[in-house]
Amino acid sequence: MKTFDLKSYLKKQRAIIDAALKKWLPMEDGPSKPVFDAMQYSLMAGGKRVRPIIFLAGAEAVGADMAGLLPFACAIECIHTYSLIHDDLPAMDNDDLRRGRPTCHKVFGEAVAILAGDGLLTYAFELMTNQALIGHISSESVLRAVSIISKAAGVFGMVGGQTADILMEGRDIDSKTLDFIHRHKTGALIQASVETGGFLGKGTQEEIRQLKRYGMALGLIFQIIDDILDVEGDKTLMGKPIGSDAKKKKATYPALFGVDEARHSVVFLLNNALSCLEAFDEKAEPLRAMAQYVVERDR
Amino acid sequence: MKTFDLKSYLKKQRAIIDAALKKWLPMEDGPSKPVFDAMQYSLMAGGKRVRPIIFLAGAEAVGADMAGLLPFACAIECIHTYSLIHDDLPAMDNDDLRRGRPTCHKVFGEAVAILAGDGLLTYAFELMTNQALIGHISSESVLRAVSIISKAAGVFGMVGGQTADILMEGRDIDSKTLDFIHRHKTGALIQASVETGGFLGKGTQEEIRQLKRYGMALGLIFQIIDDILDVEGDKTLMGKPIGSDAKKKKATYPALFGVDEARHSVVFLLNNALSCLEAFDEKAEPLRAMAQYVVERDR
Repeated sequence: MKTFDLKSYLKKQRAIIDAALKKWLPMEDGPSKPVFDAMQYSLMAGGKRVRPIIFLAGAEAVGADMAGLLPFACAIECIHTYSLIHDDLPAMDNDDLRRGRPTCHKVFGEAVAILAGDGLLTYAFELMTNQALIGHISSESVLRAVSIISKAAGVFGMVGGQTADILMEGRDIDSKTLDFIHRHKTGALIQASVETGGFLGKGTQEEIRQLKRYGMALGLIFQIIDDILDVEGDKTLMGKPIGSDAKKKKATYPALFGVDEARHSVVFLLNNALSCLEAFDEKAEPLRAMAQYVVERDR
Repeated sequence: MKTFDLKSYLKKQRAIIDAALKKWLPMEDGPSKPVFDAMQYSLMAGGKRVRPIIFLAGAEAVGADMAGLLPFACAIECIHTYSLIHDDLPAMDNDDLRRGRPTCHKVFGEAVAILAGDGLLTYAFELMTNQALIGHISSESVLRAVSIISKAAGVFGMVGGQTADILMEGRDIDSKTLDFIHRHKTGALIQASVETGGFLGKGTQEEIRQLKRYGMALGLIFQIIDDILDVEGDKTLMGKPIGSDAKKKKATYPALFGVDEARHSVVFLLNNALSCLEAFDEKAEPLRAMAQYVVERDR
């Protein structure tokens, strides 16, 4: 099954998502223009679009096409981007570079960066509930999808994980707490992305259950690889300084278990992710290839 | 029509909203507990609950009862509280006191305060889309209400207004820009509150149109009185220092036109607000009394 051309697939999907983001990105002249500029700056900073691609691939895996799902794909990317803007703030991770460019607060100042994050998060819900855009999905399904995504993005998911991550900085951490951080900070939104893709694509309960399991495994792989790249990665490829986790005494998998053990965990999780897709046919090939890609990525 | 006992009404409504907030306030032990504590600290800091009360009064005015609407009332208060937490941050208004108590970031630190705001904003959408709580409103109506509220809270509403407010600090401002700030920063969410109340309460299109007009007038009154109180108010009653707007060179109505002219505008807006309610019967008495109350408040 090595015939699937992931590189072309990713390029095609990214172009579709970028075009949709561009189309629906809010813009208004007037006294509040800088917040629109800041949102655009961060949203169009050349992200990999992993979450919206995974979301669409979840729908594809259960046989749905993606027409009508793009507002959700864009909303998920808005939520991800808001989290990056707020994470980069001086009071949080205090990062100056993101994707090779100055972070939002470096360009627009802290106040506008905070507001741009707030604006993107809120705009995600505008997009998901915009009935003109999501016409042919039932209101019940839209509501349930928004519910899943809001839970994954909030205190029981991403916000909770980021809180634990920030608070554990510089402190000794056990594997249980590290697992909590990874599952919440990174796993929850990736899981919710593929789950809502399968759900809005009208997958069966069992299909959605397997997609959820796949999503969490993928999220954990993603985070561990991120941590490994912070130790071993290439600064130019990464677009940010290497070793910043260690400098901030961040809780990471390689810091706790070493890089070799971290790589073993990744292999285990990859097998786990692929096993969740066993009952799916070739339409799940993008999800299978994405898992491979996340393991092998160098940026 | 002076028989309506607003004081008792407000006390009763506040108790109902406070009980609902307490019941649905998220709480979780574990590594992310501080963000839950910070959300609770700010949400239960003794707010006046103006927005959720206005929301419920909008539903009451069109003859609906409030059963099933409380998740929305709580969500609106979560959105309002998140905006206060973020507004108070050092990078924004840099306020140490709110409702007579230290602001969220003073107690929990900036990082957790940012995350508590993010958490409350996201939780508002969890509450509004929680199908176990909002069982008997149609999914179509819930979706449309969430759409209205997200738009009013986001860059086309509150976030946009706050951006303009922050950016105009210390700069000369014209009345058009001041009007933009007031309508977006304060007016939009108050308007959306009473509008969605009327909408979810199944008001007619004309009723909802009048409630919207009422809501914007009320929002503008609210903001102008706020600005007047910052000039003339009592520090003990207000729970925060007086004169802080002038110290920060904030754009305010009294600063631009003087206190007398500001009071004239309030009278004009009050008449305007009351005229929107002319076609409503005695069930709109709370809304009429609320407008009076907002004009006469001293804190």
